[in-house]
Amino acid sequence: MEQIASFRAFGGWHKRFRHHSASTGTSMTFAIYLPPQCDQGTKVDVLYWLSGLTCTDDNFATKAGAQRVAAELGMAIVMPDTSPRGAEVADDDSYDLGQGAGFYLNATQAPWAAHYRMYDYVAEELPALIEREFPVTLRRSISGHSMGGHGALMIALRNPGRYAAASAFAPICQPTASPWGQKAFTAYLGDDSSTWQNYDSCHLLQHAQQALPLLIDQGEQDNFLPTQLNPQALADIAQARGWPITLRVQPGYDHSYYFIASFIEDHLRFHAYWLRQVVGG
Amino acid sequence: MEQIASFRAFGGWHKRFRHHSASTGTSMTFAIYLPPQCDQGTKVDVLYWLSGLTCTDDNFATKAGAQRVAAELGMAIVMPDTSPRGAEVADDDSYDLGQGAGFYLNATQAPWAAHYRMYDYVAEELPALIEREFPVTLRRSISGHSMGGHGALMIALRNPGRYAAASAFAPICQPTASPWGQKAFTAYLGDDSSTWQNYDSCHLLQHAQQALPLLIDQGEQDNFLPTQLNPQALADIAQARGWPITLRVQPGYDHSYYFIASFIEDHLRFHAYWLRQVVGG
Repeated sequence: MEQIASFRAFGGWHKRFRHHSASTGTSMTFAIYLPPQCDQGTKVDVLYWLSGLTCTDDNFATKAGAQRVAAELGMAIVMPDTSPRGAEVADDDSYDLGQGAGFYLNATQAPWAAHYRMYDYVAEELPALIEREFPVTLRRSISGHSMGGHGALMIALRNPGRYAAASAFAPICQPTASPWGQKAFTAYLGDDSSTWQNYDSCHLLQHAQQALPLLIDQGEQDNFLPTQLNPQALADIAQARGWPITLRVQPGYDHSYYFIASFIEDHLRFHAYWLRQVVGG
Repeated sequence: MEQIASFRAFGGWHKRFRHHSASTGTSMTFAIYLPPQCDQGTKVDVLYWLSGLTCTDDNFATKAGAQRVAAELGMAIVMPDTSPRGAEVADDDSYDLGQGAGFYLNATQAPWAAHYRMYDYVAEELPALIEREFPVTLRRSISGHSMGGHGALMIALRNPGRYAAASAFAPICQPTASPWGQKAFTAYLGDDSSTWQNYDSCHLLQHAQQALPLLIDQGEQDNFLPTQLNPQALADIAQARGWPITLRVQPGYDHSYYFIASFIEDHLRFHAYWLRQVVGG
């Protein structure tokens, strides 16, 4: 693991690392914010943040303003990249497939299956690395934006007990019914849509056995809301099953990082609350 | 004046505009954050933010996290570009001269004199436009980073009574003695260094007649501190003259936007305090 950048921020450190990933078979880059409490020898809880289409580890780091609140709460934030990258990694000319668009799944179809194993990377390999190399507890929570909101909800729902809570900004809640999801799942998973269900948060929530606190913020003026996101489908399933979900539709807000920055503090405090309820770690 | 973007942010609006500038003779782009109080019909005070080398109006807007505090304080923030731009505007291959490097002065030398009149633009034309077109008071304050810190201090010192206060992050405090300043001033103003003094904050502070509250944050690990910035020279002059200055050297911090984001809240509260002391407006 090689440190490639380090910035003092809000009394803590924002750092970027590169390492070889066994999951993807490539070099992967991630960022981590370590709050000031780490300098004093305290182990801190970890929030995983999954970014959206076209993003790297850097978008959330520079634009969301999350480090300020993480410093106050004593929470680390881990920001992985959104796909494997490099000359040897399959790619596509469109922004919503290939590099920068990994959809947090394990691809089964050529040419993607060789390296696109972001589910294993984010759900298994990266937490193991973080918990081995940094002063953190085993208490985890997870959040994300758009494609990363899909990733956060889906990974948390598939791994009961592993995350204290999940939250998302403008998540792709039902990718099997969204053009973005259908295009990506067809390419990565093939035409048999029965294999898609394990990556669809609405399907997973319908069949989940263990309640998970959920917070979703959605901009009412988001251009992608009418066709791609469908938070109401997820909220309806949660309500029918009596599950804890808060869906907030924010008037005037769009899909941008200005929207994320405006409400990230609420999300961090939500995760901090549920992380405190976790026994052990 | 044409609106080219609008984002809901922290209950207010972050907007970008393009307009023809009489000062530069070009199209100019600026951003303005209008806090929620403007929606309710309240006129708000204005902070001008001047960015550093290579920046546009967008760097501070997306990376500093200032809108959160501006929304709380009820303060507008105006973010001009750092130079005229376009195919007809003289440029240079280096990052510290030409487009993106206007140094907030009026150039007198060919080929720069035709359009590089950022002093007139920022000190005169832009405030007049803002005060005509937006729900703002005539109470102004000014801040900036690096080259923009030089601009903020210099413009405030040259215009007593026009700004409630000035602050800066890692400003070029004595450009006549810094390689960045010497290169730019030679190109824009010519070899006669006596013409440079009117753009040098140390010189201006030495001869100023009216005290101006000053706050400067400087990262101790800033790579440019040893050669380019010289905040101690400014602090020494202020101290010798019994002027109000706070210079904070922040251990571990560098020249980046992580540094700015970490302390921008203090600067906005400093400006809000001094803006409240202004009579009238």
